[in-house]
Amino acid sequence: MNVKSLGEFGLIAEIKRKFEDIVPDGVEGIGDDCAVIPKDEFSSYVVTTDMLVEGRHFLLDKISPQELGYKSLAVNISDVASMGAVPRFTFLSIAIPPETDKKWCEDFIEGYHSLSAEYNIALLGGDTTATDKGHLTISVTAVGEVENRNIKRRSAASIGDLIVVNTMLGESALALKMMMAEEYIEPELLKKHNRPSPQIKEGVWLGSRAEVHAMMDISDGVSSDLEHICKLSGYGATIYMDKIPHSDILKQRCAEHGWDPLNFSLSGGEDYGLLMTIDATRFELLKSDYFGELFPIGVITDGDKIEYINVLGEKIAQNKGFRHF
Amino acid sequence: MNVKSLGEFGLIAEIKRKFEDIVPDGVEGIGDDCAVIPKDEFSSYVVTTDMLVEGRHFLLDKISPQELGYKSLAVNISDVASMGAVPRFTFLSIAIPPETDKKWCEDFIEGYHSLSAEYNIALLGGDTTATDKGHLTISVTAVGEVENRNIKRRSAASIGDLIVVNTMLGESALALKMMMAEEYIEPELLKKHNRPSPQIKEGVWLGSRAEVHAMMDISDGVSSDLEHICKLSGYGATIYMDKIPHSDILKQRCAEHGWDPLNFSLSGGEDYGLLMTIDATRFELLKSDYFGELFPIGVITDGDKIEYINVLGEKIAQNKGFRHF
Repeated sequence: MNVKSLGEFGLIAEIKRKFEDIVPDGVEGIGDDCAVIPKDEFSSYVVTTDMLVEGRHFLLDKISPQELGYKSLAVNISDVASMGAVPRFTFLSIAIPPETDKKWCEDFIEGYHSLSAEYNIALLGGDTTATDKGHLTISVTAVGEVENRNIKRRSAASIGDLIVVNTMLGESALALKMMMAEEYIEPELLKKHNRPSPQIKEGVWLGSRAEVHAMMDISDGVSSDLEHICKLSGYGATIYMDKIPHSDILKQRCAEHGWDPLNFSLSGGEDYGLLMTIDATRFELLKSDYFGELFPIGVITDGDKIEYINVLGEKIAQNKGFRHF
Repeated sequence: MNVKSLGEFGLIAEIKRKFEDIVPDGVEGIGDDCAVIPKDEFSSYVVTTDMLVEGRHFLLDKISPQELGYKSLAVNISDVASMGAVPRFTFLSIAIPPETDKKWCEDFIEGYHSLSAEYNIALLGGDTTATDKGHLTISVTAVGEVENRNIKRRSAASIGDLIVVNTMLGESALALKMMMAEEYIEPELLKKHNRPSPQIKEGVWLGSRAEVHAMMDISDGVSSDLEHICKLSGYGATIYMDKIPHSDILKQRCAEHGWDPLNFSLSGGEDYGLLMTIDATRFELLKSDYFGELFPIGVITDGDKIEYINVLGEKIAQNKGFRHF
């Protein structure tokens, strides 16, 4: 059996099992968007790490170095914010083909710096190395800080919770598909894929609210990401497909091409919005306090399956999120 | 200009400069073996990250997966221990060619786990991804914990300090050279390169002693690593080449091949012993308390150069350590 057939989640599950007995009390390891490490009596650090590989996560001729630098940081601090934490520090390692232009590196750093400066996130270290015939590979570790009472976990969903997202879904995946087909893409749509906005203020605000139970960021697509919340919380879910928020541009491009918008919004991935479950009885109050948009798309159920209901009220087969192997 | 001619340290210096004004008070960023992040009133976390790339840092046919797993962790916790800190948590990211055998991955994890279990270091997260035509790439982030008064920094050397190492030097580089020449290597010598012993107990013990001023781990070779201590402390150094500790096996193999042992011990790199500066007046006392070996190899001087004195008392030209680009 090779690692491709084992799959990313199979490998992670094996690693988690093997190391479980070393994790000390009060520390949370593999399984959520971030690990949780105690800081002082009232607060913790959360830590996450992501690796981006040329040819797998990005193509050098489809993304500018500034955008790639920005995105490498954005996908990591998105995980931090989804725990309700404020991103504070990062570490950047990069394996670079030695013929890479100095200007490319400077522009990459410029993009990484612009997002760091926007949220006052300090780059505290890293590693630079050459990779002789390999792909450009970027590894970012991000550290956030959070009051213990504000930490949001995937495992915290309750029966009857509304399942809510805070952004339109699917545009990043649509942009990727059009990009790969070499089609013209409006700059605003392309940005959704190449320069995604991490939901920092949103995550921290929602983290501070007790009505929000489980929270995570949408990286592999709602249908795949929601499975983690359901599995760790021990419940099922019902998703109403007509409630999935689609932007006008997504609907328009899909209509032109004869594509199903749900393929992008449920299974596309890389939205980097927040997926959360919220106490249904207090949702309207929370929504009226919140500065952004909140779209309820379903409900947590007393089961172990995720059911999808179409506009006619019929159950339909489930979509799958993006898999790395 | 490409990144090869800019060099690893040039790139890091540019990054450090660009991000300097975001680093908050009480936090230490780029420049030492680890970053320092405040924990509570009395203690801090230290964080380091290293990237290992196939073809650059290791060759898959020259190291077993168990050894590679072990070494990937060892080189990181070596940095942690060199700050005087106890390694506590790690994060492991790995980009794997998809055809990689499942058994290879399991053996790699086994090696990583064996060292984790030895020192009770919890693996708290990471990332696994495929790399289609690229090299196997491993990125480890390690977090240690240390009382603030025990933190050892590269910048803390004083004039007159003895420059001291706690291991024989050069065997790792010798093993690498013989390995590349496809020569027979004794298992004990090969282990020095493929399964280096991180100086955990040693670093923590030495960290707790005020006589030890500056400390770092020896990764690029003493001649290159010492430059960092001198530069950050604002002093020079004199190294007595006849004091460099060479093992019998190093001397023997070098004699057989007509090689200069100093090429391995001063410029070879990957020793992962500790390089430190110690108050000369209290060295003998410290040495009598210490459970291992300590080899004084030179002295910190009031200058800005590192001078090398040979056995005849003559100054000789300086060797350079390993460069990643």
